[in-house]
Amino acid sequence: MATKSLSVDTDRKTQIIDITTAVAEAIPAEASGPVTVFSKHTTAAIAINEAESRLMDDFETALEDLVRSSDWGHDEIDDNADSHVRSLLLGPSETIPVDKGDLQLGTWQSILFVELDGPRSRSILLSFPE
Amino acid sequence: MATKSLSVDTDRKTQIIDITTAVAEAIPAEASGPVTVFSKHTTAAIAINEAESRLMDDFETALEDLVRSSDWGHDEIDDNADSHVRSLLLGPSETIPVDKGDLQLGTWQSILFVELDGPRSRSILLSFPE
Amino acid sequence: MATKSLSVDTDRKTQIIDITTAVAEAIPAEASGPVTVFSKHTTAAIAINEAESRLMDDFETALEDLVRSSDWGHDEIDDNADSHVRSLLLGPSETIPVDKGDLQLGTWQSILFVELDGPRSRSILLSFPE
Repeated sequence: MATKSLSVDTDRKTQIIDITTAVAEAIPAEASGPVTVFSKHTTAAIAINEAESRLMDDFETALEDLVRSSDWGHDEIDDNADSHVRSLLLGPSETIPVDKGDLQLGTWQSILFVELDGPRSRSILLSFPE
Repeated sequence: MATKSLSVDTDRKTQIIDITTAVAEAIPAEASGPVTVFSKHTTAAIAINEAESRLMDDFETALEDLVRSSDWGHDEIDDNADSHVRSLLLGPSETIPVDKGDLQLGTWQSILFVELDGPRSRSILLSFPE
Repeated sequence: MATKSLSVDTDRKTQIIDITTAVAEAIPAEASGPVTVFSKHTTAAIAINEAESRLMDDFETALEDLVRSSDWGHDEIDDNADSHVRSLLLGPSETIPVDKGDLQLGTWQSILFVELDGPRSRSILLSFPE
């Protein structure tokens, strides 16, 4: 099977959630090579960094400051253009080396789901080279 | 064959073009696993988001606002350092789960070619796990 | 073997280093498909752009300007939240098409290691589809 799915529920407009354990448990023992963790959404993202609680709060602040509310055309339809812009900049996926089922992350690296227009229920795909 | 190429012609300095259909048609029916869509340029990018027309205009505005013209050293050679900085931030590729030839995109996700120093003729590679 | 490692030593807080030759030499002749170049760190990144010396200086300036020092919560623990935010935005990896051992980069593209909290010794993994 080339793909597995995960889901995550979010509570706030901008929220960073550590999904490392869920991803690690979903990788088959025989998988080796680059594995892609992919969010199926346009106002969310996948990122990798340290899951230290104060730092995760700093990330939420930094993402809100980087792209401010403005006179966006899309806001005539749906008042979340700022969320789409943040998602465009972070991107929907990270690709991570896996060796015989084990994620080859560095000591301080965690896989982060980045909610940018919550609260919502979100879907994540893992894609393995066959 | 591990690679296929696509081309796109752009009209403006900053321009977002939806290439989802062209990518989908180029993926062989037997491909499964993570597929990489890769721009071969240093003043362009590949991104994924919603291809709603007002939002695509908002993205163009947001990218121009995020990195302003400045007293860049590279501008002594070629007056486009701002385009290179935007390209560095967005990155040249996206990697997308594929299952038996089908892109596993979410409902609102489109694959976007991001021109940052047009108008130009641009080359895109698709890379498949063999 | 699905993975190879490289190392790089950096000299400054923010520093861009061209690692294209080291990556190219580490790719086995039989490798084909998307290859991931992955930094194992939370205050560094991998990017792709032109390795022109004045432009690389511009990138260092742009990254420092994009995320300013601020009253970050993480700075109570370790005074480098700004470096983590820059790393979050750039991301730890790039995935590049390879055809029979050859990187399929465009004419002006180089693979860049982006130090954001140096000087440090850094580890990079290359991950190949098997």
